[in-house]
Amino acid sequence: MVIAKARAVDGPDKLFRKAEIQRRDLDSHDVLIEIKYAGICHSDIHTAHGEWGEVNYPLVPGHEIAGIVTDIGSEVTKYKVGDRVGVGCMVDSCGECENCRQGEEQYCLEGNVPTYAGVDKYGEPTQGGYSTHIVVTEDFVVSIPENISLDEAAPLLCAGITTYSPLNHWNAGPGKKVAVVGMGGLGHMAVKIAHAMGAEVTVLSQTLSKREDGLQFGANDYYATSDPATFDKLAGTFDLIINTVSAKIDMNAYLSLLTLDGTLVNVGAPAEPLAVNVFSLIGHRRSFAGSMIGGIRETQEMLNFCAKHNIAPKIEIISADKIDEAYERVLASDVKYRFVIDVSTM
Amino acid sequence: MVIAKARAVDGPDKLFRKAEIQRRDLDSHDVLIEIKYAGICHSDIHTAHGEWGEVNYPLVPGHEIAGIVTDIGSEVTKYKVGDRVGVGCMVDSCGECENCRQGEEQYCLEGNVPTYAGVDKYGEPTQGGYSTHIVVTEDFVVSIPENISLDEAAPLLCAGITTYSPLNHWNAGPGKKVAVVGMGGLGHMAVKIAHAMGAEVTVLSQTLSKREDGLQFGANDYYATSDPATFDKLAGTFDLIINTVSAKIDMNAYLSLLTLDGTLVNVGAPAEPLAVNVFSLIGHRRSFAGSMIGGIRETQEMLNFCAKHNIAPKIEIISADKIDEAYERVLASDVKYRFVIDVSTM
Repeated sequence: MVIAKARAVDGPDKLFRKAEIQRRDLDSHDVLIEIKYAGICHSDIHTAHGEWGEVNYPLVPGHEIAGIVTDIGSEVTKYKVGDRVGVGCMVDSCGECENCRQGEEQYCLEGNVPTYAGVDKYGEPTQGGYSTHIVVTEDFVVSIPENISLDEAAPLLCAGITTYSPLNHWNAGPGKKVAVVGMGGLGHMAVKIAHAMGAEVTVLSQTLSKREDGLQFGANDYYATSDPATFDKLAGTFDLIINTVSAKIDMNAYLSLLTLDGTLVNVGAPAEPLAVNVFSLIGHRRSFAGSMIGGIRETQEMLNFCAKHNIAPKIEIISADKIDEAYERVLASDVKYRFVIDVSTM
Repeated sequence: MVIAKARAVDGPDKLFRKAEIQRRDLDSHDVLIEIKYAGICHSDIHTAHGEWGEVNYPLVPGHEIAGIVTDIGSEVTKYKVGDRVGVGCMVDSCGECENCRQGEEQYCLEGNVPTYAGVDKYGEPTQGGYSTHIVVTEDFVVSIPENISLDEAAPLLCAGITTYSPLNHWNAGPGKKVAVVGMGGLGHMAVKIAHAMGAEVTVLSQTLSKREDGLQFGANDYYATSDPATFDKLAGTFDLIINTVSAKIDMNAYLSLLTLDGTLVNVGAPAEPLAVNVFSLIGHRRSFAGSMIGGIRETQEMLNFCAKHNIAPKIEIISADKIDEAYERVLASDVKYRFVIDVSTM
């Protein structure tokens, strides 16, 4: 058994504290990873604050994990000690249902095992990446290509795959007009990936404050959604809209920007239902869809794609003592574009 | 110019009265049709009652039109006198926009010209099929195959194409599980068409009162949505759900019935927005979509498909004096399954 240093919260309103957590002894297919970097995702904050349902505290969040393999179980074949690896939002699934068999473990019909705030097959609560070590079955570990640094790899494990998967599924590519709503952690990855896929990319952000960055990331256009003229000008324009905003927005205004057969995909999940005017959909055979991270095979594909196209998130590295401050800054949209914890400071 | 006998309403709360309307002299590409039968669609009622926006009264509804060509313009090539023809929900479109060029005239970017309550290219209000004659440009006329009777052909021009088009677009067929919500005019056509396409068809109706009919139309299963157990039992089952109900229903309950990558398509259009829980979509990459009638080429394809598979609506023929009564019965769901006006009684 490994004792890992970690940062945990004890309740919805509590600050992070130092903690020690036990990582299980290696089962035959398990991999022990020494975590080097862990990204901070908005989901961590929702969960830590108890906003997505009841949580068993203490909780160690973190599902954007990059590190090095330091030990392997007796039957592990995919990884060896020293390998650079990543772990994302899930650490296991049933492996047998229709969706798992298709490689869509994120949609496991039995429910996948989330990296934290879940319960694993041993009946133990899962604890995430704000810690020095983690043990994960090899099938839920991905390989980080050599030319992606570990700190920049971390956010790819959630922000990267969450945007890559719908862009891939709905065929973003040459000749397609893609809009990205929101220029945060997910949004800036969506811009880079959609651009690399060959699509024409437009950012729709509340203001023009991040316009320079957006264009540098590969956007062809950048519009402020606070300006009503934006919606008139862009009506019926996009084949695909990736909405990364979790807040409740006027969905019908965004649907009106889709062309015939266009799809708006929510990757953010507002807690309250959204009001959808059915005429917005019927008028141009539009679709309103949702997408959740991606499967393990697709996550590896995404990492390879990012390596090939030199895509990395823009990150700000923080020490473990700054997690609370980072949460406040994420909530204030004061981050360009992803905080990553240097786990050596744990 | 032809003077047609018609039935018109003079306001949202008015009853139908006898009227005479002028049909324009034939332009070079126009076809004069002697209408034999006109179906009564729920949209007629919404429009006559002014529920879908302001209407210029007097109004002659009717967009499920079947009749015989009695005269043609000088350059008409597609039809000749004596041909059995139909007209659906639109009588013209710009013909030049991207969507028209794709044969999706229903989604014309300039707005198609609806068969009634619209304005044609001559600046004249359009008046529909509750009348003895209509003049339509040949490109918006379809041919009714010999083995479909004119009375049964009429409802195909709206109820038929409105359900055929999304079933076709979203690939209903062998191996696909399709649910049809509502067993009215549209719903019963959706069952017949989806069954003929080879899909496994389930009807979701408020009660089991029309179960026998549903099974006879080709449904494999039939469930009452008033029974909450239905939603538990069928969770995650369907690849495609066609919702023909215009009333506000609990969309999230129906979305939960979709499998991974499943789509719920609304062909009914409730006036109020629907509340969509984004988690319902994200959890299984589901889509909520809308579809509106179909293009002219697809309408002809649908008629040929129905002829080939011996598909016809189940109709109740009424005289023109019974339109008001029929409207009341449609609103009370007391129709099996489509009223068709015998225009000889006009």
